[in-house]
Amino acid sequence: MATFAINSLLNYKTEKYIVTENKAVGVLHRLFQLSVIGYIIGWVFIVKQGYQEIEDAIQSSVITKVKGTAVTNTSESGLLVWGPEEYVIPPQGEDVLFVVTSFLETPNQKMGYCAEVRTFCFHFKSPTGHNRPQCGKCIRNNENSNGTCEIFGWCPTEKDIKPQKPLLKNAENFTIYVKNFIQFPKFSFSKSNILKTTDQSYLKKCRYDKKQYPYCPIFRLGDITRRAGCNFQDMATLGGAIGIVIQWDCDLDKGTSHCNPEYQFTRLDATVSNKSIAAGFNFRHARYFKNAAGESSRSLYKVYGIRFHILVHGKVCKRHQRQNECINGANGTFFCDIVLLYLTTGRKSYKDKKFEVLKYEKQHTSTDVDIS
Amino acid sequence: MATFAINSLLNYKTEKYIVTENKAVGVLHRLFQLSVIGYIIGWVFIVKQGYQEIEDAIQSSVITKVKGTAVTNTSESGLLVWGPEEYVIPPQGEDVLFVVTSFLETPNQKMGYCAEVRTFCFHFKSPTGHNRPQCGKCIRNNENSNGTCEIFGWCPTEKDIKPQKPLLKNAENFTIYVKNFIQFPKFSFSKSNILKTTDQSYLKKCRYDKKQYPYCPIFRLGDITRRAGCNFQDMATLGGAIGIVIQWDCDLDKGTSHCNPEYQFTRLDATVSNKSIAAGFNFRHARYFKNAAGESSRSLYKVYGIRFHILVHGKVCKRHQRQNECINGANGTFFCDIVLLYLTTGRKSYKDKKFEVLKYEKQHTSTDVDIS
Amino acid sequence: MATFAINSLLNYKTEKYIVTENKAVGVLHRLFQLSVIGYIIGWVFIVKQGYQEIEDAIQSSVITKVKGTAVTNTSESGLLVWGPEEYVIPPQGEDVLFVVTSFLETPNQKMGYCAEVRTFCFHFKSPTGHNRPQCGKCIRNNENSNGTCEIFGWCPTEKDIKPQKPLLKNAENFTIYVKNFIQFPKFSFSKSNILKTTDQSYLKKCRYDKKQYPYCPIFRLGDITRRAGCNFQDMATLGGAIGIVIQWDCDLDKGTSHCNPEYQFTRLDATVSNKSIAAGFNFRHARYFKNAAGESSRSLYKVYGIRFHILVHGKVCKRHQRQNECINGANGTFFCDIVLLYLTTGRKSYKDKKFEVLKYEKQHTSTDVDIS
Repeated sequence: MATFAINSLLNYKTEKYIVTENKAVGVLHRLFQLSVIGYIIGWVFIVKQGYQEIEDAIQSSVITKVKGTAVTNTSESGLLVWGPEEYVIPPQGEDVLFVVTSFLETPNQKMGYCAEVRTFCFHFKSPTGHNRPQCGKCIRNNENSNGTCEIFGWCPTEKDIKPQKPLLKNAENFTIYVKNFIQFPKFSFSKSNILKTTDQSYLKKCRYDKKQYPYCPIFRLGDITRRAGCNFQDMATLGGAIGIVIQWDCDLDKGTSHCNPEYQFTRLDATVSNKSIAAGFNFRHARYFKNAAGESSRSLYKVYGIRFHILVHGKVCKRHQRQNECINGANGTFFCDIVLLYLTTGRKSYKDKKFEVLKYEKQHTSTDVDIS
Repeated sequence: MATFAINSLLNYKTEKYIVTENKAVGVLHRLFQLSVIGYIIGWVFIVKQGYQEIEDAIQSSVITKVKGTAVTNTSESGLLVWGPEEYVIPPQGEDVLFVVTSFLETPNQKMGYCAEVRTFCFHFKSPTGHNRPQCGKCIRNNENSNGTCEIFGWCPTEKDIKPQKPLLKNAENFTIYVKNFIQFPKFSFSKSNILKTTDQSYLKKCRYDKKQYPYCPIFRLGDITRRAGCNFQDMATLGGAIGIVIQWDCDLDKGTSHCNPEYQFTRLDATVSNKSIAAGFNFRHARYFKNAAGESSRSLYKVYGIRFHILVHGKVCKRHQRQNECINGANGTFFCDIVLLYLTTGRKSYKDKKFEVLKYEKQHTSTDVDIS
Repeated sequence: MATFAINSLLNYKTEKYIVTENKAVGVLHRLFQLSVIGYIIGWVFIVKQGYQEIEDAIQSSVITKVKGTAVTNTSESGLLVWGPEEYVIPPQGEDVLFVVTSFLETPNQKMGYCAEVRTFCFHFKSPTGHNRPQCGKCIRNNENSNGTCEIFGWCPTEKDIKPQKPLLKNAENFTIYVKNFIQFPKFSFSKSNILKTTDQSYLKKCRYDKKQYPYCPIFRLGDITRRAGCNFQDMATLGGAIGIVIQWDCDLDKGTSHCNPEYQFTRLDATVSNKSIAAGFNFRHARYFKNAAGESSRSLYKVYGIRFHILVHGKVCKRHQRQNECINGANGTFFCDIVLLYLTTGRKSYKDKKFEVLKYEKQHTSTDVDIS
């Protein structure tokens, strides 16, 4: 019984086939196979490069530097020259940076009591305070008009003015120099967006242009907004947000010198800006002073501007170095058939049995015909 | 020989099948097939939606705006009103923002020599300096007590006090307005977390609530900590970190109006806060002043507070528009069989050969019976 | 006709096999199968752990705290002690932080007219302004020399000096304490990079060392640059960028206590720094003052230093809890064959038909031999 089980275990089982010698069907069959092979080679291997390994775990570091100056002249602030140390917030060159294009200064604010500008009060009734502490007294210009609520806070309070046009008119001509360094640790590949060039003055003169200078890392603000489909002066008046997408899609098999970034520009608050309450982008910051007597004062700045967010995406692909893991036919049928068909002594008998030949010309006679 | 090779090449080879007419086995076989098909349709297509393309390369931009005021009254700083320009650090509305809930001011520091508070020295022995430069002299109150090391630095030095309760008590009622704009470039899909509504006052009044206002983008700080499972006053005393997760999981086939964000709140320093040395979150910053003589002084602020980190995750899925790439049977066997079985003149003979019929009623007689 | 269709539908069709009793081929076939099974078990299951679910959607929060002091003594700024509140920008402990290692102060700048230092003008010809507004007058020392363009701006202008050595010499000994908290929401797994230890003084004394203290979260700046393959004093002179990669690769089946971070250090501006124009990393920031008369002045700081970027990567894997979704043989052939072969009454006849036995010893005689 044990002997039989071993015998049975060592029997080789293969599918039995019918072979038809109808030429039309044969041609059809081969054409179909060719189209499948053509599809696999053409689409999977050439177009999709399915034999390559794809890696999208990108490590990216971005350093930015803005250049340019602007002059403003307002009644509150006087004549002012703005450099990057004033209009770029924060100044340390991060991948998210805000460029001031307009501002409203409220100078010489001191802690004290004064009239609010937005919280109205009516005929001796005091309102509920509009989220402001210590609001009890109603300050009115005359007996019958509505007044505004008295507050304790930084006085005088900020005026309720919306800018009609950007004050830093020259902001359109400011430039951002973007240094991006990427790494794909899996492939030990690293690259910078700054071209290796012998021309030292290139990086001092060039400005990004999709056609002429696609790899120049210096961007004029006005060009960025234009490419994102926005009008700079409109955005500069109330503020907005722009994304600068750096896309690295590289085939490392073609050589690393062909691996270059592509820049895209997109408005990041487009949907938001459709609604009046959410329109624009501004925030307040303050500078603090102390006078000789040690009293504190501050200058409050409400700044409007454009926030630039540099987003880095990418993937690289590289030819697979390991052995092909796909075993053609998991149980070796193909391999064993080859042995039986061509290498064993009983090959003729095996062929007779494995392939039953069907001849259409003489279809009613014997079909067990040798194909060799 | 060449003719033969071509003939052989154009032979069509197909598997030979046995057909059994046992009804019980047939029913069993069909039931099994039905259950497999049911599984594929039910699980893969309906539950897992395997026929859809999934995209998780989200591009996200976050703008935050905090509102609210608080009053503090301390012996060092006097009566102060805190607005967002003071208590939000940095003030420019980034996705990582710190809200001051308590502070310790050390005003009027000037460069000079004074006694440290933490580095003790014993009986004329000078210690090794506690990472502080120029520490040589030991300043003691009386002959027998230990003194503290004299340092050169900003004097007077900061007191070694830990806050017992938050000073900005009203911080719980501050609100964060989160503007999130996402894009999936692959599907040209973009959306904002701010609902398109005709009610202009909605965004002025609403506060996020999981049940009532799940899409209101304005969050009360106290609600955020409560939903993250923390007590606001505890966190506000020593500081902490909270994550606001915005999750976008959308089926674009259902229409973009069904694509809405979900908000989750989680404490980001939970494990850290279990150990006393790592508990809380604070840092120091300073404001610099110059007096009439040009001498520098500064006010040092040690601020405790809650850091909010807005994390955006998401994936969208959409029905596959391209041709189905799975070819049913890579070598066309199925297609060719159909032709042979139904379209060729010798179809009866082919059927006889391809399908060997096994009838159980008369199993010892001839089995090569036509099934048609 | 309908009856026939149903009969035909319930016929069970299976492939016809040839069984050869050639032992050599049988052994070969089994060896091949064993090697395939060995490969699948060995490589896919043990090495690649293909049976586990892998999750790489990591949620990470980083808090940093720098400690250490340095003293500088320059002609412009005098004797200064630098604490983290001065040399870390921004001070709020983010995952991207800049540590000042050298600086150039331009104190007491006021708005006014003065000579630029870089824009030269020749013999009464005024240049095109070098991106500076209101540049019309040429200021020269004597009649024949070239002068520099007069500007309106913050005066005096910054000197055109490049640092030769870092001014904050002690910066090498500063330490960064990195608190990293990660979460994998899918597996409800969270962990911090701070070890749970009973020794409270451990976190006060330890310094990261790859061999001795691989889990100490406190890093000496000099150690970081050394491990990234850079010389600290070189980087500190002109500035640079370093990435601290925290890698979490965890097998949750081995227990969460084995899930520990690995730290890697890499220079992030390596390629950039090869070119003179892009070398180093610096930016300008300013402190603003007002005198008794309300006139503004500022101190401009051009700071050089090292930017540290803490990058957190990771994936965890965990054994798959759901039912195995791979159905062995989608149309149940295997299952039905078992029934026919062993459970039905006509099993001998079915075997005779399904398996055609090919015996090599008697290959010219009848081949329809029962294998049982």
